[in-house]
Amino acid sequence: MGNASFLHDLLHPKSIAIVGASNNPMKMGTMHALSILKDGFDGRLYPIHPTEATVLGQTAFKSVQDLPEPPDLAIFVLPSKHLPPYFEDFGKIGTKSAIIITAGFKETGNEGAQQELLLLETARKYGMRFIGPNCMGLINRAISLNTTVSPLMGPPGKLGFVSQSGTYVAQTIDYLEKRGIHFSKAVSVGNEADVNLIDVLEYLGEDEQTRAISLYIESIRDVRRFLEVAARITPHKPVIAQYIGGSVAGARAGQSHTGAMAGQNHLYDGLFRQTGVIRVDSVEDLYGIGWALANQPIIKGNRIGIITNSGGPGSAIADTLEAQGCTVPEFSEALREQIRPLMPSHAPCGNPVDMTFALDMKVMTETIPEMVMKSGEVDGVIIHGAMSSGFMKVIYPHVKEMLGDMPLDDFLKTTKRDLSESVRLPFKHEIPLIVSAFFDREDQYTREYEDNGVPVFDSPEKAARAMGKMVAYSGIRNRMRNKGPEISEPHPDAVRIISDALLNRQRTLDEFSAKRLLNAYGIPVTEEKLAADATGAADAAATIGFPVAVKACHPEILHKTEQGLVHLHLTDVEGVRDAVDAICKAYGQPVPILVSRMIPGSRELLVGLINDAQFGNCVAFGIGGIFTEALKDITYRVAPVSRVVAEEMIGDLKTRKLIGPHRGMPAVNTAALTDLIQRISIIGNIHKEIEEIDINPLLISGSAPVAVDALIVLK
Amino acid sequence: MGNASFLHDLLHPKSIAIVGASNNPMKMGTMHALSILKDGFDGRLYPIHPTEATVLGQTAFKSVQDLPEPPDLAIFVLPSKHLPPYFEDFGKIGTKSAIIITAGFKETGNEGAQQELLLLETARKYGMRFIGPNCMGLINRAISLNTTVSPLMGPPGKLGFVSQSGTYVAQTIDYLEKRGIHFSKAVSVGNEADVNLIDVLEYLGEDEQTRAISLYIESIRDVRRFLEVAARITPHKPVIAQYIGGSVAGARAGQSHTGAMAGQNHLYDGLFRQTGVIRVDSVEDLYGIGWALANQPIIKGNRIGIITNSGGPGSAIADTLEAQGCTVPEFSEALREQIRPLMPSHAPCGNPVDMTFALDMKVMTETIPEMVMKSGEVDGVIIHGAMSSGFMKVIYPHVKEMLGDMPLDDFLKTTKRDLSESVRLPFKHEIPLIVSAFFDREDQYTREYEDNGVPVFDSPEKAARAMGKMVAYSGIRNRMRNKGPEISEPHPDAVRIISDALLNRQRTLDEFSAKRLLNAYGIPVTEEKLAADATGAADAAATIGFPVAVKACHPEILHKTEQGLVHLHLTDVEGVRDAVDAICKAYGQPVPILVSRMIPGSRELLVGLINDAQFGNCVAFGIGGIFTEALKDITYRVAPVSRVVAEEMIGDLKTRKLIGPHRGMPAVNTAALTDLIQRISIIGNIHKEIEEIDINPLLISGSAPVAVDALIVLK
Repeated sequence: MGNASFLHDLLHPKSIAIVGASNNPMKMGTMHALSILKDGFDGRLYPIHPTEATVLGQTAFKSVQDLPEPPDLAIFVLPSKHLPPYFEDFGKIGTKSAIIITAGFKETGNEGAQQELLLLETARKYGMRFIGPNCMGLINRAISLNTTVSPLMGPPGKLGFVSQSGTYVAQTIDYLEKRGIHFSKAVSVGNEADVNLIDVLEYLGEDEQTRAISLYIESIRDVRRFLEVAARITPHKPVIAQYIGGSVAGARAGQSHTGAMAGQNHLYDGLFRQTGVIRVDSVEDLYGIGWALANQPIIKGNRIGIITNSGGPGSAIADTLEAQGCTVPEFSEALREQIRPLMPSHAPCGNPVDMTFALDMKVMTETIPEMVMKSGEVDGVIIHGAMSSGFMKVIYPHVKEMLGDMPLDDFLKTTKRDLSESVRLPFKHEIPLIVSAFFDREDQYTREYEDNGVPVFDSPEKAARAMGKMVAYSGIRNRMRNKGPEISEPHPDAVRIISDALLNRQRTLDEFSAKRLLNAYGIPVTEEKLAADATGAADAAATIGFPVAVKACHPEILHKTEQGLVHLHLTDVEGVRDAVDAICKAYGQPVPILVSRMIPGSRELLVGLINDAQFGNCVAFGIGGIFTEALKDITYRVAPVSRVVAEEMIGDLKTRKLIGPHRGMPAVNTAALTDLIQRISIIGNIHKEIEEIDINPLLISGSAPVAVDALIVLK
Repeated sequence: MGNASFLHDLLHPKSIAIVGASNNPMKMGTMHALSILKDGFDGRLYPIHPTEATVLGQTAFKSVQDLPEPPDLAIFVLPSKHLPPYFEDFGKIGTKSAIIITAGFKETGNEGAQQELLLLETARKYGMRFIGPNCMGLINRAISLNTTVSPLMGPPGKLGFVSQSGTYVAQTIDYLEKRGIHFSKAVSVGNEADVNLIDVLEYLGEDEQTRAISLYIESIRDVRRFLEVAARITPHKPVIAQYIGGSVAGARAGQSHTGAMAGQNHLYDGLFRQTGVIRVDSVEDLYGIGWALANQPIIKGNRIGIITNSGGPGSAIADTLEAQGCTVPEFSEALREQIRPLMPSHAPCGNPVDMTFALDMKVMTETIPEMVMKSGEVDGVIIHGAMSSGFMKVIYPHVKEMLGDMPLDDFLKTTKRDLSESVRLPFKHEIPLIVSAFFDREDQYTREYEDNGVPVFDSPEKAARAMGKMVAYSGIRNRMRNKGPEISEPHPDAVRIISDALLNRQRTLDEFSAKRLLNAYGIPVTEEKLAADATGAADAAATIGFPVAVKACHPEILHKTEQGLVHLHLTDVEGVRDAVDAICKAYGQPVPILVSRMIPGSRELLVGLINDAQFGNCVAFGIGGIFTEALKDITYRVAPVSRVVAEEMIGDLKTRKLIGPHRGMPAVNTAALTDLIQRISIIGNIHKEIEEIDINPLLISGSAPVAVDALIVLK
């Protein structure tokens, strides 16, 4: 794949030139160069400097032309106005990869955007690919390459990271080190003038060093490609994303600093659901849950065992797990009998296992966890309260004197224990283990757990939330997948309806026409006739059968109910005549009348199609009727959708209880509903003239969905 | 107040005896004694020990009778079976306060519960009050008293803490110290055999050292007293609570370890809303948000200014703030003109102010924050990216050599700055300041902020969430308060209806009787008549006016619709006759028929009264009709409620948009709705025989609420 190949080159240079490094240690360029020099990269580094003979001990070169070889990668950290000639020079000598750290481009306005386009043109001319501008560079632990301002710490990890904010790649190194989290590869993509977040995601999807991928997203410009790439990765590798930019100020802030238009929160939600990307709402979760997924075995179910040294944290873990759809099953008597002899008398051992201030850490971290894992009664385990040196350090000042002033190190040795069997358990039994601890890496247990791929969270609720997301990923991995529909042929009736409307210079179809169009594509609609006047309406009603609804029907009337242009539950011919008179009076002139059969049913849903500037056609499904705005229980997907995705949309409803048998009503025919959602999702592709479809309410009559009102807006 | 007085004594002893301490440093009793001895308590400590002459260097006493004085406080850390005689001995010599650390009581089952009751009897006999059993003791920083196993760290703080789990008082000291959080007083209440969480809450409410109170709750046994006490405190002091136990396993776990019955999650939600207690869902928030509220000035509005050194965190803060109902207003041009000269060119200064990797920390933490605070355009400020030594330590390994191997301490001094003006800003301007930083207390800024009462959170989202809760507390402080209703007299009609039903041995009232009862208390109900047969029903319908509904009406029929015993929208006499025939056929025999006028309206609400074993009568309000179970948009309050509380219940609706003018429907008459909720909340107090009232739907007809169906269950 071309993408994998150029990004592989960009991430694996053998020689690097840097423009903007000097011998002043507090300059950005110098800090970037120092990271390359000091963090283990074993290729060649060529500083370009106008005056210095050496920079950071490396021979410096006055110009690009003076270089002994065309470097594989060029890095730019000089002011934006000086950048273009250097950039072009590298193109000329045959350098194919670049990182532009320099800011001052699209994020500053139109002029900067123009400059950024010129960079792109230069790159295209010479076949160069580049990351940035306005970025922090990258980290590739496979070759110890670090081009950011912050030194690498700790060993290589298994978490891949792509960020539209440089801070999260370069400014959190110390934060991550203190939580035992390490990247495999991390890329700050900046303004994405050339290489974008999706390119890197695609690359990491195939990178063996990377076991899970975290994305910090402010805007996805090519939604269709993200859809394709992410959906390809998530069945075999977890992808976690934080999206920021849904709020007013967030959009304002996001726009200022990456120059990207902020998209809409609910569309991103749908996009993540559609692609199997796990959404989180804090950078802490982006790192911590990403790390857990990158290191622990895939969970096989949702039954979690809890082992704790205290009831409070045990209960908090149980509560948080259940709130996320996990279960904390009571252990069998057989398992409890195994555990009980190891516990203080009366201590609960039925899950949570509450060891009540236990100090026998072998029992707590090895014997009981292994019993639980081997029992077949759980799919994952959480331990709270495994600790040694952290707690010992805390109490040392109090006990020091009693211990004859034993040195701290000797005191710590009294509880030091070989933890290798404890940390091996999850991998041996293929059952994920997550630890909750109030002691950080100063504690031997926290440190050894983290260093051996067992994530440690600093509160019980976080450990439980991480386990919940592991279960969510297991669902994503196992979900059905099928192809979207082939685009079918336009129906001649639909073509005629649209062209008539366009000829009439209508922006919307009237309700009757809209329903005819939908019906041409197999959408069930109410039985109805158009009438010119009261007599026609009365005849129509008699033909259709009572009760009927009578409505004004005209493309310019959008809010019929509010204007008194709808009369419902009419049971006889006189009622119809009176209603038509009332409607014409309210409208101020004669108007075509739509006579529809009233159908029984009280579940009102909504299916629609919208056209978003960034997402293109998206299909919407949710609760309709008077609850539409009050509930906002609506889910979106990029259209068209497959049957499986349409089914998942139904499952997304917060009020999905309404779909099952409910209060004496039969279950909704979900096959028909799925089919209907899918059909609506296709129509926008068949008829590019359609801007928006809004079926609301889609009434559930008995178990069958029927479009009772429909609006179609044209472009 | 008696309560304040006995708890004051318990928390301020001048002499303490401890039973269970020895010279073995790894025994629990010894650790408790060491905390008392080493952490600054300047009173007298008397160890009781059967054999040793001295314990921890203190003269030990063989028995309670040998003590030189009756100690103010006795602490017990010996096995439960040995405890009672010692406990009684202290009673005999006149000790009035005790802490029973010892476990093995109610939490282990019936036998333990019996033992616990005996302790309580002993205490009552001698006028003793005690905390525990099964607890970790207490911390009182006013007199440097610490009876827990963990040493005190750092200076006294302003956060009061009461916990039903000992872990959160004693096992998180190191965790809290590393986050700069310190208690004023903290009490682990254990099994609450005598002193309970509410007692301590009440005491802390009046404690001047305590500026905010955090509660870890697994069960509140005396809900009415909590209601009274908490509601008295929250208008002048913030109270934050985490409640655990709503889940199946959480209840199982909670029961095991504190012996308390777990209550229901949604009832606690309502209780916290009713009392103005801020609920959080993690122990991290319990500490961190409690700390923020204890230290920062009360916020006056919801407009927040953001100053950041990076766009990503700035956007995350903005997003999270808005999701919580805060605004991030764009600054006026005047303010932007003040700020702009201090910023890099093109850097956004309109809020968020994005300084883009600024290193001038005076501008970032002092000059711009003060401009923003003085502008009058915000009510609170969040800063992300204030840092010095944390970042310097990170880059030191890379620059060390270039700096001629300058020692780290010297290097750190190059950026050291007097932060006193920065930390003073929020107090000077009475505008709260919260800091987000990826560097912990190893950074001078984080440390100095924290040590001066400016909370620092380790991620942008947490800082924003804390600010959101400060805004929530400001709303609680300002909310209207009024008294609940005086209980009114029973209405004779209601008395008769209930006594008739009880005479008939009914557990429920039939719909007609239920509505008569409600109507006697001013609840609007549908116009209706009871009929014996089809003819009677037809006559009734003619009198009432069409359309009508016809239903079977019998106390034993609970699910009318599902059984085909309800016919709606009947428009003529024949329809009524047919419906009655169909109903009698479906029921299998003649049945009384209720003929009700059909009223128009599509908003279906629910008002009810439930009787909970723990909470007593609670009033419920929410969305009714087919959405009842699917939405579960229902809020609860302990009954009876004042008008203000009833109004707040309406405001609690997630779907409150339905209450305003909506889709052509007028706004609901909230005065009438408030009145109705209040009346229902009273009825249970007037008629103790009522177990449950369920008005569903409460239809909004036009703007007026009308009870369309009602069920009353008797005890």
